[in-house]
Amino acid sequence: MNASSPPPPDTVFDWLDAEATKRADAGLTRRLRPRPAQPDELDLAGNDYLGLARDKRVAGSAAAAALRWGAGATGSRLVTGSTELHAELEHELARFCGAQAALVFSSGFAANLGAVTALSGAESAIVSDKYVHASLIEGCRLSRADVAAVAHADPEAVRHALATRRKPRALVVTESIFSVDGDAAALGEVHGICREHGAALLVDDAHGLGVLGEGGRGAVHAAGLSAAPDVVTTCTLSKALGAQGGAVIGPRRVIRHLVETARSFIFDTALAPASAAAALAALGVLKSEPDLPAKAIDNAANLAMHLKAAGLRTTLPEAAVISVRAPSPEAAFGWAEACAEQGIRVACFRPPSVPDGVSRLRLTARANLTESDVDRAVKVLTATAPRGAAA
Amino acid sequence: MNASSPPPPDTVFDWLDAEATKRADAGLTRRLRPRPAQPDELDLAGNDYLGLARDKRVAGSAAAAALRWGAGATGSRLVTGSTELHAELEHELARFCGAQAALVFSSGFAANLGAVTALSGAESAIVSDKYVHASLIEGCRLSRADVAAVAHADPEAVRHALATRRKPRALVVTESIFSVDGDAAALGEVHGICREHGAALLVDDAHGLGVLGEGGRGAVHAAGLSAAPDVVTTCTLSKALGAQGGAVIGPRRVIRHLVETARSFIFDTALAPASAAAALAALGVLKSEPDLPAKAIDNAANLAMHLKAAGLRTTLPEAAVISVRAPSPEAAFGWAEACAEQGIRVACFRPPSVPDGVSRLRLTARANLTESDVDRAVKVLTATAPRGAAA
Repeated sequence: MNASSPPPPDTVFDWLDAEATKRADAGLTRRLRPRPAQPDELDLAGNDYLGLARDKRVAGSAAAAALRWGAGATGSRLVTGSTELHAELEHELARFCGAQAALVFSSGFAANLGAVTALSGAESAIVSDKYVHASLIEGCRLSRADVAAVAHADPEAVRHALATRRKPRALVVTESIFSVDGDAAALGEVHGICREHGAALLVDDAHGLGVLGEGGRGAVHAAGLSAAPDVVTTCTLSKALGAQGGAVIGPRRVIRHLVETARSFIFDTALAPASAAAALAALGVLKSEPDLPAKAIDNAANLAMHLKAAGLRTTLPEAAVISVRAPSPEAAFGWAEACAEQGIRVACFRPPSVPDGVSRLRLTARANLTESDVDRAVKVLTATAPRGAAA
Repeated sequence: MNASSPPPPDTVFDWLDAEATKRADAGLTRRLRPRPAQPDELDLAGNDYLGLARDKRVAGSAAAAALRWGAGATGSRLVTGSTELHAELEHELARFCGAQAALVFSSGFAANLGAVTALSGAESAIVSDKYVHASLIEGCRLSRADVAAVAHADPEAVRHALATRRKPRALVVTESIFSVDGDAAALGEVHGICREHGAALLVDDAHGLGVLGEGGRGAVHAAGLSAAPDVVTTCTLSKALGAQGGAVIGPRRVIRHLVETARSFIFDTALAPASAAAALAALGVLKSEPDLPAKAIDNAANLAMHLKAAGLRTTLPEAAVISVRAPSPEAAFGWAEACAEQGIRVACFRPPSVPDGVSRLRLTARANLTESDVDRAVKVLTATAPRGAAA
């Protein structure tokens, strides 16, 4: 570059405006909409599947922990950030899920980065479903492994990639419930293929924990894999558990390895005590109310069934996530806006946040939705549907 | 790989044990030590520089927010995770630092990932001080940019890399106060070089915000750069502000770009309301007690001076971080252990967490250390110093 005629400093970021214009032209502008503490609208967009974020036992535990332990953890987990509260949460989480050990991260994103990078490396192949979450994709990109992103929900593609890999070790990466469409991976079948090929299996159970399996023990537990010596589960504390943070759950040797090598664990401030306490309290609620997860699933099934009956292009949910296809990004955006005007908050997923490029509304059900909530949602979604939304 | 004779499933992770043995042989084993709510020991390891994590105004705000807003944010910032509390924190943080806008992430790690990746890309060069934090390095690795990691604290190396770059755009990446040794970057000089070469400057002010500058406005503010159109600051809410989370602070167009493109922002659950409220309350404390940061700096200078006078190889701190060199990883570990036995918690930094490969103790000062705390620390550190620790 020619250093003798530098551009004026206020033009250095002009390219950001050019990119913003491109996004606007493609109907892909995104804006933050801060919400009040007590929104009037019906929330069909959040991931608080059991309604625990505002449960008094959970929020009360968070408040008590902030007062007892302080507002922050004060350091990384290996320095001053590990409290007895973190240790208790890890113990209870592992026990709840039926695994040997667990490790809490400050987010599910960080847990996925840490697990994928620390459990692969230059001597590894990674075989990943191509629709996995952005945090898993970033982990793959940081891993130095040979990465094969294979066709979505296609166990045979996993088998082929494992059989033709050039690295001795292999890690297969999938979600249990995919976050956009809410469809399920064939965990048992994929695990069988891993076994045939000496591969480890990493399952992101972010949308399964607290929703699927016996008492909400998750999709990995439901598949009988939570104690397997070759399976690692990642999850979030910020969805069904109503708190913040993420975790990796699995064999004790895996957890020890992550403590010592996962960069997103070592170089990150520990989860705030209030969030750890909230997640711990949420596990307590799940243990005392084992039927709670089924309510979320029933509400999701009911909502999806009515939307489908009304002619919309709706997935049939495997957990509590429902997607409804829209004919274009603009149509999806306008539909979500129209729902908001009628008092219903739904999420609008558009490229690049959708792996297949298809814009849609993403709806989530909660255990504490009422029948009248579901009725109202179906009415509003149907009445506001754009041209081309029907199947 | 030969699929006809797969290894037994319980051997799939045997390689982790082999790596653990290698670390143990090199004296590099790390273990978590959960602490109680009211530790007896004197903390010279955490990053709670102003003692605000346990301040009643800060912890009380966290508790109140958990009860009012819920234990978790329930979704990503673009879906349901943005509350009016997040918006207020962003407004106040930008105003406090003298910038146009700010954006809160769930961690400083996530803020760094997001800022580096979204503000560079395949058309960019990145010129990074080679001692920057792991989160900035991961951001560089994810960026698709041409990355040059240049000599530490060497503005001429930055100039050379900018002058010889092959990409039109450039982003220079540095910390203000480097996290391991506590030394300072020459921000004014580096910024001048950026200007000569049409580059943007990204400064991680994690250890400067709340400690340096007028009333704790940070190192970027102190350098007169917080309103510059070509400067972006990242920071953490989990050190001097005593909470959890991170933020990017800078021109409005930069913040808008991050909202729309930073993957560690878009695909992450929002910061818990309790943590946002705690950081907001900490800003309020800073505004009402503008002399608080100087106490942390004075205590650090005092501690370092006495350690140096006692013959230890101590850095002279630019903020509140002090490093004391140890002759080997084993010696550093043993020294930290001996301090702990005497009731003083110091951090032990060993490879691979030290950019220069030198093991050391890392000490941090707090605004609320007493003279007798400092005396005791000097006595214990000197009495337990290993052979070879003296200068």
